[in-house]
Amino acid sequence: MKDIQIRPATSADFEAIWAIFQSHLAAGETYPFDLDTSREAAHAYWLGAGVTTRLAVLGERVLGMYRLVPNQVGRGGHVANGSYMVGPAAQGVGVGRLLGEHSLHEARRLGYLAMQFNYVVSTNTAAVMLWKKLGFSIVGTLPKAFRHKRLGYVDAYVMYQLLQDPDHWPTADD
Amino acid sequence: MKDIQIRPATSADFEAIWAIFQSHLAAGETYPFDLDTSREAAHAYWLGAGVTTRLAVLGERVLGMYRLVPNQVGRGGHVANGSYMVGPAAQGVGVGRLLGEHSLHEARRLGYLAMQFNYVVSTNTAAVMLWKKLGFSIVGTLPKAFRHKRLGYVDAYVMYQLLQDPDHWPTADD
Repeated sequence: MKDIQIRPATSADFEAIWAIFQSHLAAGETYPFDLDTSREAAHAYWLGAGVTTRLAVLGERVLGMYRLVPNQVGRGGHVANGSYMVGPAAQGVGVGRLLGEHSLHEARRLGYLAMQFNYVVSTNTAAVMLWKKLGFSIVGTLPKAFRHKRLGYVDAYVMYQLLQDPDHWPTADD
Repeated sequence: MKDIQIRPATSADFEAIWAIFQSHLAAGETYPFDLDTSREAAHAYWLGAGVTTRLAVLGERVLGMYRLVPNQVGRGGHVANGSYMVGPAAQGVGVGRLLGEHSLHEARRLGYLAMQFNYVVSTNTAAVMLWKKLGFSIVGTLPKAFRHKRLGYVDAYVMYQLLQDPDHWPTADD
């Protein structure tokens, strides 16, 4: 694990990102995207304007990635939204945890006050456990909101945590 | 109330939509959009490709509107997301309820299996009460997720309801 680095993504990383993204779509167990999601849509999602994307790399090899965006515009822009994918060859060795910890650090550094996951598939127990370990709580349950490829309709969770003490949040309005 | 009609929106309605949209942004109490949201962004939100938009009209006058979109792509596309705005001159006379009822009917007609609101401002008690009356439950609470113009950071709710009996949901996968 000690040789794994986290670094910003560039357009040159797109093929590696695309391969990991495709593996998640094929599984149909973690993210809603259709298997026929276009390269253009994937590029916009991972490398579009305003998206903060970081890769976990071992030398030249991309193991996984995350993205941070504001979860809402304007009056909701103080809450970050994070998305994470780890490639099939790097599952279960702690890459998700590294990405999660890094993303929380990065979100604080960018000035976000809270962080939200809109759509954690309830049957993805490894992810749910990891997010709890990293300070997130399940703040909502969306009944049958995800059509799981093997299991059919399953619940999805909304997970959330404050990143700064609310007593010290900025109070200024527009 | 009996003379109020609900009809599809067209591009010709954009000025009326824009005026109502602007009134909500100025208030800063219901939706996250910044006051400097562009006309182009508003047009895409209300009249963009794939957006189902309906207006409540009294003769030529637009009183309010709603939009329906899939809340997620692909494996989450069976859940509708609805957004509603009523103009300042038509508040409190039941237009929101008419729009809400119509949107539920329309969502069922379009084949959605559930409906979700991602971001109901908790201090917007009229809206929260109306959605409960129309069958929605609060399924999640997002702590301090909305920066209210008068009240500062307040909670937002995730609200949800199933639109069809899950025993009869389609089971086919890709």
